[in-house]
Amino acid sequence: MENFELQKTDLLARTGLLKTRRGEVKTPVFMPVATRSAIKGAVSFQELSDLGASICLGNTYHLLLRPGDDLIAKLGGLHAFMKWDKPILTDSGGYQVFSIKKKKITDEGVYFNSHIDGKRFYIDAEKSIDIQHHLEADIIMAFDECPPSKLRLSPEEKQSKMKIMGISDEALFEKKQNRKLYFKVKKAVERTTSWAQRSLDAHWKKYPISLSPTARPQIFGIIQGGCFPDLRAISCKAITQMPFDGFAMGGLAVGEPPKAMYEVLDKIVPTMPEEKPRYLMGVGTPTDLVEAVSRGIDMFDCVLPARNARHGLLYTWNGTVKISQKKMETIEAPIDENCGCSVCKEGLSRAYLHHLIKVGEDLGKRYLTIHNLYFYQDLMRTMRKKIETGSFQPWKNEILEQWQTKTK
Amino acid sequence: MENFELQKTDLLARTGLLKTRRGEVKTPVFMPVATRSAIKGAVSFQELSDLGASICLGNTYHLLLRPGDDLIAKLGGLHAFMKWDKPILTDSGGYQVFSIKKKKITDEGVYFNSHIDGKRFYIDAEKSIDIQHHLEADIIMAFDECPPSKLRLSPEEKQSKMKIMGISDEALFEKKQNRKLYFKVKKAVERTTSWAQRSLDAHWKKYPISLSPTARPQIFGIIQGGCFPDLRAISCKAITQMPFDGFAMGGLAVGEPPKAMYEVLDKIVPTMPEEKPRYLMGVGTPTDLVEAVSRGIDMFDCVLPARNARHGLLYTWNGTVKISQKKMETIEAPIDENCGCSVCKEGLSRAYLHHLIKVGEDLGKRYLTIHNLYFYQDLMRTMRKKIETGSFQPWKNEILEQWQTKTK
Repeated sequence: MENFELQKTDLLARTGLLKTRRGEVKTPVFMPVATRSAIKGAVSFQELSDLGASICLGNTYHLLLRPGDDLIAKLGGLHAFMKWDKPILTDSGGYQVFSIKKKKITDEGVYFNSHIDGKRFYIDAEKSIDIQHHLEADIIMAFDECPPSKLRLSPEEKQSKMKIMGISDEALFEKKQNRKLYFKVKKAVERTTSWAQRSLDAHWKKYPISLSPTARPQIFGIIQGGCFPDLRAISCKAITQMPFDGFAMGGLAVGEPPKAMYEVLDKIVPTMPEEKPRYLMGVGTPTDLVEAVSRGIDMFDCVLPARNARHGLLYTWNGTVKISQKKMETIEAPIDENCGCSVCKEGLSRAYLHHLIKVGEDLGKRYLTIHNLYFYQDLMRTMRKKIETGSFQPWKNEILEQWQTKTK
Repeated sequence: MENFELQKTDLLARTGLLKTRRGEVKTPVFMPVATRSAIKGAVSFQELSDLGASICLGNTYHLLLRPGDDLIAKLGGLHAFMKWDKPILTDSGGYQVFSIKKKKITDEGVYFNSHIDGKRFYIDAEKSIDIQHHLEADIIMAFDECPPSKLRLSPEEKQSKMKIMGISDEALFEKKQNRKLYFKVKKAVERTTSWAQRSLDAHWKKYPISLSPTARPQIFGIIQGGCFPDLRAISCKAITQMPFDGFAMGGLAVGEPPKAMYEVLDKIVPTMPEEKPRYLMGVGTPTDLVEAVSRGIDMFDCVLPARNARHGLLYTWNGTVKISQKKMETIEAPIDENCGCSVCKEGLSRAYLHHLIKVGEDLGKRYLTIHNLYFYQDLMRTMRKKIETGSFQPWKNEILEQWQTKTK
């Protein structure tokens, strides 16, 4: 039995059904992030289910550190631990590990220090898959190297480097830096390919490939290559040749302009297998989701809706709302009269939510997080419907123009 | 129509029905505290209702500062603001104001600086009642002076004072200090009596006494007098002579030993009107509630169950549980197998709750707060049942002994 059923297409946009051992997921889908086995903002998993989420994400890195994958395994896996019976996708830990400043990367794996107590850890492809098996994830990500989108230098570091290199022309220096980045990303692509094969091998050791993907955890490969079209193409070719259950684009939305990300999608997504789910990792804003779905992406995850909620930035069909603005103080209307989330339906006023955020009540963060996570689910539902009815393209143009106008 | 219907008695313990314009409340009752129009720990008012709360408390001082009583009035009152349609009792602001270090008390009222931005405020009986009217409280508390239970001195201050007074004998000094406290409390009793009459006058100006107490906000008087039996008796006599809808004991649970509080209750409660509700403000631990109910108290409020929950201390029928203890790390059982709260019923393990508290997830605080608030409601329900069936006294002895043993 195949794990992905492609249903409707509207140009490149598509709906489908992702079939996992813990149930089916309608795509395009947005997966909320339960970093440390909890949704930040005190939202419960019952509420997450009620607001329409059909799959969520756990972070291997954070769970490895606390409470530890061994303990979670002993307690029956992540589903039993946090009481969520729908599918869970876990990342490989790579993204977080490569964000740590103090680390040592070899072709074998990565040594890093915990951000909590500085304790030394080692992770590699086999270890990452092993942890994800312990967590009992339904979708496992191959271990990858996620390179930065830019070699970031402070003005002082830049001046010092230019001096050492004997360069006074900034443009020339930037060109050299970009060349350096290119080789860094190239190396990451090579390692990602090698680690992808090792991840697959480690996975099959526990779950033979002969098992139906709906009866075992699935494993997805990750395409790297930054914003370099040739490296992306090389990585895509190498990864999609391997028998993964799905394919992800990693290393995007890491600081590059949205346009650069859309260009990578334009070039690469059409070369990805049509019959497998396509997952754009760590993306993004509502606009990003619409743009990526229109380019053929099926799956997303991002901390943005929850993080922005905690900072008082709310999404609505009419654009964003900043709840901490002074003018919200007296508004009796809810965030969005037409929103179906429990907060708007209960009629909690902008004035009340403004007050809760102003005084720092956790209840305020919880309400705003519920609203934003609902909006994201509503956005995905709407996109699925538009694709099914063949009206995605005009709808896309209209909504993006409307959001752009409102944001101005 | 009377506002209080005494139902059953078991020695001094009693059940009753408190009738307000927003519905009836079974007593003895515990009122959770929604300090700033929210239950701390991100618990929603729907959850508060679901866990059995039939009335809650708002803090005049905090709401005066933020968002301001005028704004809440403009938005339709506290019920509309925070979406809670059951009765609300508001305190007078006195307790918080008298806790502020920088204040100036006169016979007229109190000048104080906001703890948030240092802004100067003035509050007196008329102002306090006015604010509580703005909030649309269903039970309003008279403005009182809450004196400290002890004149607290640092060892240095004590030495310096003893030197100035030319006293070297500590016992003699303590005696003199107690004498000083006595006159301070005496003055507070006198002011509380005068402010009680002014509070009543201010209340009747808006809601004539001819109105049925079930058709208007009720107003309760507060008895002060610290742990001095004669002052308590004087205050009780003065306050209960006034036509309040109920009577509260203030200035207890402010640092004195539990035994001292029980002694005050032993002396004073029997002299309070039988036909009016009796409210012990700011109390307390489960043991305190049992002891006070056995002495004839009908109403309680306290931040303790929610505050302790946030710090990981949980109440159960089998004694307390410290969820952050290392040994909780691997326990698959819920906080209490027999508890009916949503957290225990869902089967969330101690191990999971331990993890959430350890990593600092707000969801953990929310779950623990729900459990403790449920336990307090369950405790009150149980006491009402025991009184109704005439089995309160043996039950009381048994449960207190059990808790004492478990705490050892």
